Amino acid sequence: MMRKMNLKKMAAEKAVEYVEDGMRVGLGTGSTAYWAIKRIGERVREGMTIQAVATSKASEKLAAEEGIPLVPFHQLDGLDLTIDGADEVNPELSLIKGGGGALLREKIVAYHSKQLIIIADEHKVVNTLGAFPLPVEIIPFAHEWTLGSLEKLGCSPQLRTDNDQLYVTDNGNYIADCRFGEIADPAKLHQQLLYIPGVVDNGLFIGMADRAVIADSDGTVKIMERPLNR
Amino acid sequence: MMRKMNLKKMAAEKAVEYVEDGMRVGLGTGSTAYWAIKRIGERVREGMTIQAVATSKASEKLAAEEGIPLVPFHQLDGLDLTIDGADEVNPELSLIKGGGGALLREKIVAYHSKQLIIIADEHKVVNTLGAFPLPVEIIPFAHEWTLGSLEKLGCSPQLRTDNDQLYVTDNGNYIADCRFGEIADPAKLHQQLLYIPGVVDNGLFIGMADRAVIADSDGTVKIMERPLNR
Repeated sequence: MMRKMNLKKMAAEKAVEYVEDGMRVGLGTGSTAYWAIKRIGERVREGMTIQAVATSKASEKLAAEEGIPLVPFHQLDGLDLTIDGADEVNPELSLIKGGGGALLREKIVAYHSKQLIIIADEHKVVNTLGAFPLPVEIIPFAHEWTLGSLEKLGCSPQLRTDNDQLYVTDNGNYIADCRFGEIADPAKLHQQLLYIPGVVDNGLFIGMADRAVIADSDGTVKIMERPLNR
Repeated sequence: MMRKMNLKKMAAEKAVEYVEDGMRVGLGTGSTAYWAIKRIGERVREGMTIQAVATSKASEKLAAEEGIPLVPFHQLDGLDLTIDGADEVNPELSLIKGGGGALLREKIVAYHSKQLIIIADEHKVVNTLGAFPLPVEIIPFAHEWTLGSLEKLGCSPQLRTDNDQLYVTDNGNYIADCRFGEIADPAKLHQQLLYIPGVVDNGLFIGMADRAVIADSDGTVKIMERPLNR
Protein backbone atom coordinates (compact mmCIF):
# COMPACT_ATOMS: atom_id res chain seq x y z
CA MET A 1 0.00 0.00 0.00
CA MET A 2 1.38 3.38 -1.03
CA ARG A 3 1.86 6.13 1.49
CA LYS A 4 -0.89 8.77 1.66
CA MET A 5 1.38 11.59 0.58
CA ASN A 6 2.30 9.65 -2.53
CA LEU A 7 -1.37 9.08 -3.32
CA LYS A 8 -2.05 12.79 -3.11
CA LYS A 9 0.97 13.57 -5.28
CA MET A 10 -0.10 10.96 -7.83
CA ALA A 11 -3.62 12.40 -8.17
CA ALA A 12 -2.32 15.96 -8.29
CA GLU A 13 0.18 15.22 -11.05
CA LYS A 14 -2.45 13.43 -13.14
CA ALA A 15 -4.80 16.43 -12.78
CA VAL A 16 -2.12 18.85 -13.89
CA GLU A 17 -2.08 17.05 -17.26
CA TYR A 18 -5.36 18.91 -17.95
CA VAL A 19 -3.60 22.28 -17.71
CA GLU A 20 -2.89 23.62 -21.18
CA ASP A 21 -0.68 26.39 -22.43
CA GLY A 22 -2.38 29.80 -22.23
CA MET A 23 -4.94 28.78 -19.61
CA ARG A 24 -6.11 30.92 -16.69
CA VAL A 25 -5.79 28.58 -13.72
CA GLY A 26 -7.20 28.61 -10.17
CA LEU A 27 -4.90 27.14 -7.54
CA GLY A 28 -6.57 25.34 -4.65
CA THR A 29 -5.54 25.06 -1.04
CA GLY A 30 -4.47 22.14 1.14
CA SER A 31 -2.16 19.16 1.21
CA THR A 32 -3.26 17.73 -2.17
CA ALA A 33 -3.40 21.09 -3.96
CA TYR A 34 0.15 21.59 -2.69
CA TRP A 35 1.35 18.85 -5.05
CA ALA A 36 -0.62 20.29 -7.95
CA ILE A 37 1.01 23.68 -7.47
CA LYS A 38 4.46 22.05 -7.28
CA ARG A 39 3.82 20.19 -10.56
CA ILE A 40 2.39 23.29 -12.28
CA GLY A 41 5.56 25.10 -11.19
CA GLU A 42 7.69 22.44 -12.91
CA ARG A 43 5.68 22.76 -16.11
CA VAL A 44 5.96 26.57 -16.02
CA ARG A 45 9.72 26.24 -15.67
CA GLU A 46 9.62 23.86 -18.65
CA GLY A 47 8.03 26.67 -20.70
CA MET A 48 4.25 26.48 -20.20
CA THR A 49 2.58 29.92 -20.14
CA ILE A 50 -0.37 30.36 -17.77
CA GLN A 51 -1.96 33.02 -15.57
CA ALA A 52 -2.95 31.92 -12.07
CA VAL A 53 -4.95 33.07 -9.07
CA ALA A 54 -4.78 31.41 -5.65
CA THR A 55 -7.51 30.60 -3.11
CA SER A 56 -5.37 31.31 -0.06
CA LYS A 57 -2.35 33.21 1.08
CA ALA A 58 -0.50 29.90 1.57
CA SER A 59 -1.11 28.80 -2.03
CA GLU A 60 -0.22 32.26 -3.29
CA LYS A 61 3.10 32.11 -1.47
CA LEU A 62 3.88 28.61 -2.74
CA ALA A 63 2.96 29.59 -6.31
CA ALA A 64 5.22 32.64 -6.15
CA GLU A 65 8.10 30.49 -4.88
CA GLU A 66 7.48 28.10 -7.77
CA GLY A 67 7.63 30.94 -10.28
CA ILE A 68 3.98 30.62 -11.36
CA PRO A 69 2.72 33.97 -12.78
CA LEU A 70 0.01 35.26 -10.43
CA VAL A 71 -2.43 37.92 -11.60
CA PRO A 72 -4.97 39.99 -9.66
CA PHE A 73 -8.61 38.88 -10.03
CA HIS A 74 -9.69 42.10 -11.68
CA GLN A 75 -7.33 41.44 -14.59
CA LEU A 76 -9.27 38.31 -15.54
CA ASP A 77 -12.96 37.89 -16.16
CA GLY A 78 -12.89 34.23 -15.11
CA LEU A 79 -10.79 31.08 -15.20
CA ASP A 80 -10.43 28.14 -17.54
CA LEU A 81 -9.58 25.51 -14.96
CA THR A 82 -9.29 25.18 -11.20
CA ILE A 83 -7.62 22.26 -9.46
CA ASP A 84 -8.45 21.78 -5.80
CA GLY A 85 -8.81 19.11 -3.12
CA ALA A 86 -11.96 18.02 -1.27
CA ASP A 87 -12.84 16.43 2.04
CA GLU A 88 -15.57 14.18 0.61
CA VAL A 89 -16.63 13.32 -2.94
CA ASN A 90 -19.81 11.39 -3.78
CA PRO A 91 -20.64 9.57 -7.05
CA GLU A 92 -22.46 12.67 -8.44
CA LEU A 93 -19.26 14.65 -7.71
CA SER A 94 -21.00 16.66 -5.03
CA LEU A 95 -18.36 17.67 -2.51
CA ILE A 96 -17.72 18.69 1.04
CA LYS A 97 -14.86 21.15 1.14
CA GLY A 98 -13.51 23.60 3.65
CA GLY A 99 -11.78 21.44 6.23
CA GLY A 100 -8.88 23.83 5.72
CA GLY A 101 -11.08 26.89 6.30
CA ALA A 102 -10.85 28.46 2.81
CA LEU A 103 -14.23 27.22 1.58
CA LEU A 104 -15.61 30.56 0.49
CA ARG A 105 -12.58 31.65 -1.50
CA GLU A 106 -12.40 28.17 -3.01
CA LYS A 107 -16.08 28.34 -3.94
CA ILE A 108 -15.79 31.80 -5.51
CA VAL A 109 -12.84 30.67 -7.61
CA ALA A 110 -14.52 27.38 -8.60
CA TYR A 111 -17.76 29.18 -9.51
CA HIS A 112 -15.94 31.41 -11.97
CA SER A 113 -13.99 28.52 -13.56
CA LYS A 114 -15.14 26.81 -16.73
CA GLN A 115 -13.81 23.56 -15.30
CA LEU A 116 -13.20 22.31 -11.76
CA ILE A 117 -11.02 19.25 -11.26
CA ILE A 118 -10.96 17.70 -7.81
CA ILE A 119 -7.95 15.72 -6.64
CA ALA A 120 -8.12 13.29 -3.74
CA ASP A 121 -7.10 9.89 -2.52
CA GLU A 122 -9.65 7.08 -2.45
CA HIS A 123 -10.43 7.63 1.24
CA LYS A 124 -12.32 10.79 0.32
CA VAL A 125 -14.79 8.97 -1.93
CA VAL A 126 -18.08 8.20 -0.16
CA ASN A 127 -21.52 7.02 -1.17
CA THR A 128 -23.27 9.63 0.97
CA LEU A 129 -21.79 12.92 2.10
CA GLY A 130 -21.87 13.90 5.76
CA ALA A 131 -19.46 11.82 7.83
CA PHE A 132 -17.02 14.69 7.45
CA PRO A 133 -18.32 17.69 9.41
CA LEU A 134 -19.71 20.27 6.99
CA PRO A 135 -17.97 23.65 7.45
CA VAL A 136 -20.39 26.57 7.46
CA GLU A 137 -18.98 30.11 7.36
CA ILE A 138 -21.00 32.44 9.59
CA ILE A 139 -21.00 36.14 10.47
CA PRO A 140 -19.69 36.82 14.01
CA PHE A 141 -22.63 39.18 14.78
CA ALA A 142 -25.25 37.28 16.84
CA HIS A 143 -23.57 34.01 15.88
CA GLU A 144 -25.19 32.25 18.84
CA TRP A 145 -28.51 32.63 17.02
CA THR A 146 -27.07 31.39 13.76
CA LEU A 147 -25.72 28.32 15.56
CA GLY A 148 -29.24 27.76 16.89
CA SER A 149 -30.61 27.83 13.33
CA LEU A 150 -27.98 25.32 12.19
CA GLU A 151 -28.93 23.03 15.06
CA LYS A 152 -32.54 23.05 13.86
CA LEU A 153 -31.35 21.54 10.57
CA GLY A 154 -30.22 18.44 12.47
CA CYS A 155 -26.59 18.83 13.48
CA SER A 156 -24.59 19.85 16.53
CA PRO A 157 -22.56 22.78 15.24
CA GLN A 158 -19.12 23.29 16.76
CA LEU A 159 -17.42 26.66 16.42
CA ARG A 160 -13.97 25.94 15.04
CA THR A 161 -11.07 26.96 17.26
CA ASP A 162 -7.37 27.38 16.64
CA ASN A 163 -5.09 27.22 19.68
CA ASP A 164 -8.02 27.88 22.05
CA GLN A 165 -9.02 30.99 20.06
CA LEU A 166 -12.04 31.15 17.78
CA TYR A 167 -10.85 30.45 14.25
CA VAL A 168 -11.39 33.45 11.97
CA THR A 169 -11.51 33.02 8.17
CA ASP A 170 -9.64 35.22 5.71
CA ASN A 171 -12.99 37.04 5.35
CA GLY A 172 -13.24 37.80 9.07
CA ASN A 173 -15.94 35.21 9.81
CA TYR A 174 -16.31 32.11 12.01
CA ILE A 175 -16.59 28.49 10.91
CA ALA A 176 -19.23 26.20 12.41
CA ASP A 177 -18.36 22.54 11.79
CA CYS A 178 -21.66 20.73 11.41
CA ARG A 179 -21.72 16.96 11.74
CA PHE A 180 -24.83 15.80 9.91
CA GLY A 181 -23.87 12.12 9.71
CA GLU A 182 -25.65 11.43 6.42
CA ILE A 183 -26.71 14.20 4.07
CA ALA A 184 -29.49 12.53 2.10
CA ASP A 185 -30.22 15.56 -0.11
CA PRO A 186 -27.18 17.83 -0.42
CA ALA A 187 -28.92 20.32 -2.77
CA LYS A 188 -31.77 20.80 -0.29
CA LEU A 189 -29.45 21.25 2.68
CA HIS A 190 -27.35 23.71 0.66
CA GLN A 191 -30.43 25.81 -0.01
CA GLN A 192 -31.64 25.65 3.60
CA LEU A 193 -28.24 26.85 4.76
CA LEU A 194 -28.15 29.75 2.28
CA TYR A 195 -31.54 30.96 3.52
CA ILE A 196 -30.30 31.44 7.09
CA PRO A 197 -29.22 35.07 7.46
CA GLY A 198 -25.85 35.01 9.16
CA VAL A 199 -24.67 32.06 7.05
CA VAL A 200 -22.22 33.37 4.46
CA ASP A 201 -21.68 30.08 2.66
CA ASN A 202 -21.01 26.42 3.32
CA GLY A 203 -18.73 23.62 2.21
CA LEU A 204 -21.23 21.85 -0.08
CA PHE A 205 -20.10 22.16 -3.70
CA ILE A 206 -22.93 20.84 -5.87
CA GLY A 207 -22.83 20.66 -9.65
CA MET A 208 -19.48 22.41 -9.67
CA ALA A 209 -16.85 19.66 -10.08
CA ASP A 210 -16.56 18.32 -13.61
CA ARG A 211 -14.05 15.61 -12.87
CA ALA A 212 -12.36 13.99 -9.89
CA VAL A 213 -8.92 12.44 -10.11
CA ILE A 214 -8.77 9.76 -7.42
CA ALA A 215 -5.59 7.96 -6.43
CA ASP A 216 -6.08 4.39 -5.29
CA SER A 217 -3.88 2.75 -2.67
CA ASP A 218 -3.00 0.05 -5.26
CA GLY A 219 -1.15 2.74 -7.20
CA THR A 220 -3.70 3.36 -9.94
CA VAL A 221 -5.46 6.64 -10.69
CA LYS A 222 -9.17 6.68 -11.42
CA ILE A 223 -11.01 9.51 -13.16
CA MET A 224 -14.62 10.17 -12.15
CA GLU A 225 -16.75 12.40 -14.41
CA ARG A 226 -19.86 14.24 -13.26
CA PRO A 227 -23.04 12.59 -14.59
CA LEU A 228 -24.35 14.79 -17.39
CA ASN A 229 -27.77 15.37 -15.85
CA ARG A 230 -26.31 16.97 -12.74
CA MET B 1 -49.20 68.31 4.21
CA MET B 2 -47.25 67.20 7.26
CA ARG B 3 -43.50 67.34 7.30
CA LYS B 4 -41.68 64.08 6.58
CA MET B 5 -40.07 63.90 9.99
CA ASN B 6 -43.47 64.10 11.62
CA LEU B 7 -44.74 61.31 9.40
CA LYS B 8 -41.90 59.08 10.49
CA LYS B 9 -42.49 59.96 14.13
CA MET B 10 -46.21 59.28 13.77
CA ALA B 11 -45.68 55.80 12.29
CA ALA B 12 -42.99 54.98 14.83
CA GLU B 13 -45.14 55.93 17.79
CA LYS B 14 -48.08 53.92 16.50
CA ALA B 15 -45.83 50.88 16.08
CA VAL B 16 -44.51 51.17 19.62
CA GLU B 17 -48.07 50.55 20.86
CA TYR B 18 -47.43 46.90 19.93
CA VAL B 19 -44.60 46.66 22.46
CA GLU B 20 -45.84 44.94 25.63
CA ASP B 21 -44.40 44.67 29.09
CA GLY B 22 -41.89 41.83 29.38
CA MET B 23 -41.14 41.62 25.66
CA ARG B 24 -37.72 41.02 24.09
CA VAL B 25 -37.48 43.76 21.46
CA GLY B 26 -35.24 44.29 18.42
CA LEU B 27 -34.40 47.93 17.70
CA GLY B 28 -33.99 48.87 14.05
CA THR B 29 -31.71 51.41 12.45
CA GLY B 30 -32.36 54.62 10.55
CA SER B 31 -34.33 57.83 10.68
CA THR B 32 -37.72 56.19 11.33
CA ALA B 33 -36.42 53.62 13.82
CA TYR B 34 -34.89 56.59 15.65
CA TRP B 35 -38.38 57.77 16.62
CA ALA B 36 -39.39 54.28 17.71
CA ILE B 37 -36.40 54.05 20.02
CA LYS B 38 -37.18 57.49 21.47
CA ARG B 39 -40.79 56.44 22.16
CA ILE B 40 -39.74 53.09 23.65
CA GLY B 41 -37.40 55.06 25.91
CA GLU B 42 -40.33 57.15 27.16
CA ARG B 43 -42.37 54.04 27.89
CA VAL B 44 -39.46 52.43 29.74
CA ARG B 45 -39.14 55.54 31.88
CA GLU B 46 -42.89 55.28 32.53
CA GLY B 47 -42.28 51.80 33.96
CA MET B 48 -42.42 49.31 31.06
CA THR B 49 -39.95 46.40 31.46
CA ILE B 50 -38.33 45.08 28.28
CA GLN B 51 -35.04 43.59 27.10
CA ALA B 52 -33.65 44.98 23.86
CA VAL B 53 -30.98 44.29 21.25
CA ALA B 54 -29.95 46.78 18.57
CA THR B 55 -29.13 46.29 14.87
CA SER B 56 -26.39 48.92 14.77
CA LYS B 57 -23.95 50.76 16.96
CA ALA B 58 -25.95 53.98 16.39
CA SER B 59 -29.18 52.43 17.65
CA GLU B 60 -27.36 50.82 20.55
CA LYS B 61 -25.97 54.20 21.60
CA LEU B 62 -29.35 55.92 21.31
CA ALA B 63 -31.07 53.14 23.28
CA ALA B 64 -28.47 53.38 26.04
CA GLU B 65 -28.98 57.15 26.24
CA GLU B 66 -32.73 56.56 26.48
CA GLY B 67 -32.25 54.13 29.36
CA ILE B 68 -33.54 51.09 27.44
CA PRO B 69 -32.09 47.87 28.95
CA LEU B 70 -29.82 46.29 26.34
CA VAL B 71 -28.80 42.64 26.63
CA PRO B 72 -26.20 40.61 24.71
CA PHE B 73 -27.61 38.28 22.03
CA HIS B 74 -26.38 35.14 23.75
CA GLN B 75 -28.59 35.91 26.76
CA LEU B 76 -31.72 35.57 24.63
CA ASP B 77 -32.80 32.74 22.37
CA GLY B 78 -34.81 35.07 20.14
CA LEU B 79 -37.04 38.14 20.17
CA ASP B 80 -40.75 38.78 20.49
CA LEU B 81 -40.93 41.88 18.31
CA THR B 82 -38.66 43.96 16.10
CA ILE B 83 -39.55 47.42 14.85
CA ASP B 84 -37.57 48.70 11.89
CA GLY B 85 -37.82 50.94 8.83
CA ALA B 86 -37.68 49.97 5.15
CA ASP B 87 -36.75 51.59 1.86
CA GLU B 88 -39.62 50.02 -0.09
CA VAL B 89 -42.71 48.04 0.94
CA ASN B 90 -44.97 46.25 -1.53
CA PRO B 91 -48.57 45.04 -0.95
CA GLU B 92 -47.33 41.54 0.09
CA LEU B 93 -45.08 43.27 2.66
CA SER B 94 -41.97 42.21 0.81
CA LEU B 95 -39.35 44.83 1.49
CA ILE B 96 -36.18 46.41 0.25
CA LYS B 97 -34.02 47.35 3.19
CA GLY B 98 -30.41 48.31 3.67
CA GLY B 99 -30.17 51.81 2.31
CA GLY B 100 -28.47 52.58 5.61
CA GLY B 101 -26.00 49.72 5.19
CA ALA B 102 -27.10 47.53 8.13
CA LEU B 103 -29.14 45.07 6.07
CA LEU B 104 -27.50 41.89 7.33
CA ARG B 105 -27.72 42.74 11.00
CA GLU B 106 -31.30 43.88 10.48
CA LYS B 107 -32.12 40.63 8.69
CA ILE B 108 -30.54 38.45 11.36
CA VAL B 109 -32.51 40.25 14.07
CA ALA B 110 -35.78 40.16 12.07
CA TYR B 111 -35.33 36.44 11.29
CA HIS B 112 -35.11 35.60 14.96
CA SER B 113 -38.14 37.74 15.92
CA LYS B 114 -41.61 36.28 16.29
CA GLN B 115 -42.98 39.53 14.83
CA LEU B 116 -41.53 42.19 12.57
CA ILE B 117 -43.28 45.54 12.32
CA ILE B 118 -42.15 47.92 9.59
CA ILE B 119 -42.57 51.65 9.99
CA ALA B 120 -42.49 54.03 7.06
CA ASP B 121 -44.12 56.99 5.46
CA GLU B 122 -46.40 56.52 2.46
CA HIS B 123 -43.64 57.34 -0.01
CA LYS B 124 -42.06 53.97 0.71
CA VAL B 125 -45.12 52.01 -0.40
CA VAL B 126 -44.82 50.73 -3.98
CA ASN B 127 -46.67 48.29 -6.18
CA THR B 128 -43.48 46.68 -7.47
CA LEU B 129 -40.14 46.68 -5.68
CA GLY B 130 -37.02 47.78 -7.49
CA ALA B 131 -36.98 51.55 -8.09
CA PHE B 132 -34.86 51.78 -4.95
CA PRO B 133 -31.44 50.23 -5.64
CA LEU B 134 -31.24 46.84 -3.94
CA PRO B 135 -28.26 46.69 -1.55
CA VAL B 136 -26.29 43.45 -1.83
CA GLU B 137 -23.60 42.72 0.76
CA ILE B 138 -20.57 41.07 -0.86
CA ILE B 139 -17.23 39.67 0.28
CA PRO B 140 -14.26 41.91 -0.67
CA PHE B 141 -12.27 38.90 -2.02
CA ALA B 142 -12.57 38.78 -5.84
CA HIS B 143 -15.49 41.23 -5.62
CA GLU B 144 -15.00 42.21 -9.28
CA TRP B 145 -16.20 38.72 -10.20
CA THR B 146 -19.15 38.94 -7.84
CA LEU B 147 -20.13 42.27 -9.42
CA GLY B 148 -20.00 40.51 -12.80
CA SER B 149 -22.41 37.85 -11.52
CA LEU B 150 -24.80 40.54 -10.25
CA GLU B 151 -24.71 42.24 -13.64
CA LYS B 152 -25.80 38.99 -15.28
CA LEU B 153 -28.99 39.15 -13.20
CA GLY B 154 -29.95 42.35 -14.98
CA CYS B 155 -28.65 45.33 -13.05
CA SER B 156 -25.70 47.71 -13.09
CA PRO B 157 -24.18 47.20 -9.65
CA GLN B 158 -22.50 50.21 -8.06
CA LEU B 159 -20.05 49.67 -5.22
CA ARG B 160 -21.18 51.96 -2.43
CA THR B 161 -18.70 54.64 -1.39
CA ASP B 162 -18.47 56.91 1.62
CA ASN B 163 -16.37 60.07 1.21
CA ASP B 164 -14.59 58.63 -1.83
CA GLN B 165 -13.66 55.47 0.10
CA LEU B 166 -15.31 52.10 -0.45
CA TYR B 167 -18.07 51.73 2.14
CA VAL B 168 -17.38 48.82 4.52
CA THR B 169 -20.22 47.23 6.51
CA ASP B 170 -20.04 46.42 10.22
CA ASN B 171 -19.21 42.88 9.03
CA GLY B 172 -16.22 44.00 6.99
CA ASN B 173 -17.92 43.59 3.59
CA TYR B 174 -18.81 45.82 0.64
CA ILE B 175 -22.26 46.90 -0.53
CA ALA B 176 -23.21 46.74 -4.20
CA ASP B 177 -26.26 48.89 -4.90
CA CYS B 178 -28.16 47.15 -7.68
CA ARG B 179 -30.77 49.10 -9.61
CA PHE B 180 -33.13 46.52 -11.10
CA GLY B 181 -35.90 48.94 -12.00
CA GLU B 182 -38.75 46.48 -11.51
CA ILE B 183 -38.32 43.28 -9.54
CA ALA B 184 -41.12 41.13 -10.94
CA ASP B 185 -40.39 38.11 -8.74
CA PRO B 186 -38.62 39.12 -5.52
CA ALA B 187 -38.48 35.56 -4.14
CA LYS B 188 -36.76 34.29 -7.29
CA LEU B 189 -34.25 37.15 -7.34
CA HIS B 190 -33.56 36.60 -3.64
CA GLN B 191 -32.71 32.96 -4.31
CA GLN B 192 -30.56 33.77 -7.35
CA LEU B 193 -28.58 36.24 -5.26
CA LEU B 194 -28.06 33.77 -2.42
CA TYR B 195 -26.65 31.20 -4.85
CA ILE B 196 -23.82 33.50 -5.95
CA PRO B 197 -20.77 32.70 -3.82
CA GLY B 198 -19.38 36.02 -2.64
CA VAL B 199 -22.87 37.38 -1.94
CA VAL B 200 -23.38 37.40 1.83
CA ASP B 201 -26.98 38.59 1.80
CA ASN B 202 -29.21 41.19 0.19
CA GLY B 203 -31.82 43.75 1.11
CA LEU B 204 -34.88 41.73 0.03
CA PHE B 205 -36.93 40.78 3.08
CA ILE B 206 -39.59 38.35 1.93
CA GLY B 207 -42.22 36.79 4.16
CA MET B 208 -40.62 38.42 7.19
CA ALA B 209 -42.70 41.54 7.94
CA ASP B 210 -46.01 40.81 9.67
CA ARG B 211 -47.32 44.34 9.64
CA ALA B 212 -46.40 47.74 8.26
CA VAL B 213 -47.41 50.95 9.95
CA ILE B 214 -47.61 53.61 7.26
CA ALA B 215 -48.01 57.31 7.96
CA ASP B 216 -49.96 59.20 5.34
CA SER B 217 -49.25 62.82 4.48
CA ASP B 218 -52.88 63.64 5.41
CA GLY B 219 -51.99 62.83 9.02
CA THR B 220 -53.59 59.37 9.24
CA VAL B 221 -51.80 56.12 9.99
CA LYS B 222 -52.59 53.00 7.98
CA ILE B 223 -51.79 49.46 9.07
CA MET B 224 -50.95 46.90 6.38
CA GLU B 225 -50.98 43.21 7.33
CA ARG B 226 -49.11 40.50 5.43
CA PRO B 227 -51.50 38.34 3.38
CA LEU B 228 -51.82 35.00 5.18
CA ASN B 229 -50.70 32.88 2.23
CA ARG B 230 -47.29 34.51 2.15
